[in-house]
Amino acid sequence: MKLEQVAALVGGSLSGDGSIEISDVRGIEDAGEGHVTFVSKKKFFPLLAESKASAVIVEREIDTNIPQIVMASPMLAFAKLLNAFHPETKPKPHIDSRAALGQNVTLGTDVTISPFVCIGDNVSIGQGAVLHPGVVVGPGCRIGDEAVLHPNVTLYRNTILGNRVILHAGAVIGADGFGYTPDETGYHVKIPQIGQVVIEDDVEIGANTCIDRGTVGNTTVKQGTKIDNLVQIAHNCTIGEHSILVSQVGISGSCILGHHVVLGGQAGLADHVKVGDQAMLAAQSGTFRDVESKSAQGGYPSVPIMTWRKYVTLLPKLPEMSRKIRDLEARLKAIEKMESDS
Amino acid sequence: MKLEQVAALVGGSLSGDGSIEISDVRGIEDAGEGHVTFVSKKKFFPLLAESKASAVIVEREIDTNIPQIVMASPMLAFAKLLNAFHPETKPKPHIDSRAALGQNVTLGTDVTISPFVCIGDNVSIGQGAVLHPGVVVGPGCRIGDEAVLHPNVTLYRNTILGNRVILHAGAVIGADGFGYTPDETGYHVKIPQIGQVVIEDDVEIGANTCIDRGTVGNTTVKQGTKIDNLVQIAHNCTIGEHSILVSQVGISGSCILGHHVVLGGQAGLADHVKVGDQAMLAAQSGTFRDVESKSAQGGYPSVPIMTWRKYVTLLPKLPEMSRKIRDLEARLKAIEKMESDS
Amino acid sequence: MKLEQVAALVGGSLSGDGSIEISDVRGIEDAGEGHVTFVSKKKFFPLLAESKASAVIVEREIDTNIPQIVMASPMLAFAKLLNAFHPETKPKPHIDSRAALGQNVTLGTDVTISPFVCIGDNVSIGQGAVLHPGVVVGPGCRIGDEAVLHPNVTLYRNTILGNRVILHAGAVIGADGFGYTPDETGYHVKIPQIGQVVIEDDVEIGANTCIDRGTVGNTTVKQGTKIDNLVQIAHNCTIGEHSILVSQVGISGSCILGHHVVLGGQAGLADHVKVGDQAMLAAQSGTFRDVESKSAQGGYPSVPIMTWRKYVTLLPKLPEMSRKIRDLEARLKAIEKMESDS
Repeated sequence: MKLEQVAALVGGSLSGDGSIEISDVRGIEDAGEGHVTFVSKKKFFPLLAESKASAVIVEREIDTNIPQIVMASPMLAFAKLLNAFHPETKPKPHIDSRAALGQNVTLGTDVTISPFVCIGDNVSIGQGAVLHPGVVVGPGCRIGDEAVLHPNVTLYRNTILGNRVILHAGAVIGADGFGYTPDETGYHVKIPQIGQVVIEDDVEIGANTCIDRGTVGNTTVKQGTKIDNLVQIAHNCTIGEHSILVSQVGISGSCILGHHVVLGGQAGLADHVKVGDQAMLAAQSGTFRDVESKSAQGGYPSVPIMTWRKYVTLLPKLPEMSRKIRDLEARLKAIEKMESDS
Repeated sequence: MKLEQVAALVGGSLSGDGSIEISDVRGIEDAGEGHVTFVSKKKFFPLLAESKASAVIVEREIDTNIPQIVMASPMLAFAKLLNAFHPETKPKPHIDSRAALGQNVTLGTDVTISPFVCIGDNVSIGQGAVLHPGVVVGPGCRIGDEAVLHPNVTLYRNTILGNRVILHAGAVIGADGFGYTPDETGYHVKIPQIGQVVIEDDVEIGANTCIDRGTVGNTTVKQGTKIDNLVQIAHNCTIGEHSILVSQVGISGSCILGHHVVLGGQAGLADHVKVGDQAMLAAQSGTFRDVESKSAQGGYPSVPIMTWRKYVTLLPKLPEMSRKIRDLEARLKAIEKMESDS
Repeated sequence: MKLEQVAALVGGSLSGDGSIEISDVRGIEDAGEGHVTFVSKKKFFPLLAESKASAVIVEREIDTNIPQIVMASPMLAFAKLLNAFHPETKPKPHIDSRAALGQNVTLGTDVTISPFVCIGDNVSIGQGAVLHPGVVVGPGCRIGDEAVLHPNVTLYRNTILGNRVILHAGAVIGADGFGYTPDETGYHVKIPQIGQVVIEDDVEIGANTCIDRGTVGNTTVKQGTKIDNLVQIAHNCTIGEHSILVSQVGISGSCILGHHVVLGGQAGLADHVKVGDQAMLAAQSGTFRDVESKSAQGGYPSVPIMTWRKYVTLLPKLPEMSRKIRDLEARLKAIEKMESDS
């Protein structure tokens, strides 16, 4: 690809020789001759001087002796170019004879069903969907167009996946919610979980992540949301559009998240918590109270992130503070004694 | 079902017209005409006034113009009615020809073995048990009556499951405990894990949860205990009867939990910790010390829950406390100086 | 085995009757007649007096009336003897006809391929390797000699496993890293993840653990490292040699760990964190700053472990400290008033 083609592809404006050949795209630390690279943060500019990259994508024009492409999001250009230079190889559509299909299974065109896939009755699978080996689809599920289910994914009955949903290996969608109630003898009676899970279009879900079905009604993950590995989403939650849930997040039952919410790794929500649009929770934080839209919080129980950042720097000073209080007490007592004596 | 039948089924006393037809049971927010609903907490009573439900189950008689059923646990009634109106459909018993069975496998009556199930030698499976697709059962395992193993569950060799045990998809029971000892060169030598896992009757285990085998001797989960998704239980633990372990809990090796213990989500125990009967640990807390029976703790390291609740509210005030101490010091110094000058 | 043979096997020096018969090895609490036991910590010596063990392995000669074997690491002796008395039974090598093999698959001698294993094109598997049922190996993977892949493990394309690597059930190696960048409309565009995962020799990885492929370049786990269950390792991390990652640890993208690092259970690292050789992080701690070699840290954000231990003991005293500050303020104010009045 010529550099001018690269510029056109990413929608950026080029300054420099557009006729040079570009063979690949790389991060700033790995880029060599023939590569276009990108710099999205100021702190990486020094690396550019030492780089052998043949061209660079930047947010604003910079002082450099190699050709540059200027565009609003160099990272977005990077994503587009990775796709262009390393197009994903989709398996050739086929229904493997070693798969087990139930009754009344509807398959769109160009579907791939791999060996040892097991599909229950009354399932529909959209065109171009790929089911990798070991995937198990319970009865009544509906899988959208171009969905990809990686190996050993399990969908319990009646789960609904939108178009272009990606489920990574070992993800479990639609297991029973964790609901019991004690009887008179202290024995936990299972509350039947008769709801389902609905995953909307363009959602990606990480490896070994678990999303439980609703008790009654749905657990819903809305359009465009991305969920990392080993995340837990309990029954009857609603996760809003375009949210980001980092690895090992745990969300208790009946939580409602708005759109563009970001939960850092290992963060946790108690049940029935509402998190407003565009709110952010730092890694390892937790809350049992609602979180306002556009707020950023940290700690457990979580507080505004600047409050949290300030108090954690003081934690190691607690012993000193404690000593000072004792010292002040002693000195004040001495003065008080003096005053009363005089 | 007539309302009088509903009342009889849940064992409650009815006031109002018992002849009305009830078609389903719903939570207070979803209930409509023909539905019986339930209210178990005072704060939901206002919702009842707006509800279109045809009848309500309550703990004590209330002032309402719809028929009511009074019984000790409305939640328990809800569980019973969900079972009545939405009976679970068990797959028709059959041994699928695409399953792989080892030698000397003993199957009870009415067992279901799905496609791509793999069963090792010398395994026994009790009557009415259901093994969903992709389940792998190691040699020497014993599975009780009416047990349900959801898709892609793995049992390592010699695992024992009681009656009515439910394992959700992707659960791994009996993997090697995490035990090594360094040799002279700093290389970690694996300590063979020759013990096994015993899961007693009526235990339910969540999706992708892991319970490791004992090094020597057993890891045991006792009767009636319920374990959520993505929980880790290390080698040689004993989890007592009727306990509740919420999602992402982590329990290190050789811990001993009593009966009716409750561990909140993401809570952690260091190794060799004993947790007494009916003790409770809050979500995200952790402890490396034993926890007394009937106590409730929070924080890390955990302390009595009221102590924890009090100190966390003061954390955001640390900067102010620190400033005040500095201020007190300065003022005290001024007074001391004055005293010494006079 | 005679006791003198036991002593020779573990490389220890024997005092006492070497001709007695030893039938098994046990921990101090379980040892009975005919058993050799071991004591590695002083606190367990009292248990030895009550034990029926026929011999004991200790670090230094002790006062006891049973034969003893002295060697540097009794725990290492325990590991060796468990192996001797309970040798692991490897399945008889065979390629099951119910497995699905792609094109150009190279198998070493004595390989075991179980039922319902699915192997992609251009895969090579070293001699003596064991693939348990339900394992899925993507195209282009290389698996070393004597590797063991437990049931339902998934390797994405181009994953490389060294010799004697052990992957426990449900582990997912090589899923896409969690990388997105927003476009102008707030939609998350997936950054293609074209790198791979390299697991070096003698690494053991726990059940349902996830290790993501690099965006560009590799995610690497170096020789001899042991990883527990339900651990998350994100894209482009390097985990150094002989490290120990306890269950539910979460490591964000591009972290670099040295050799002999130890991360306690549920600990977390933010992205791009460097952890020096032999550094240690306590359970449930977290850091977004680099950790120096040989340091031990705790808390979140983590601080030197002694600092952390000191301040956490003061947390429950915060209410008292707060009260004292208020009290000091009032008393000081009274004195100040007096001074100004006089």
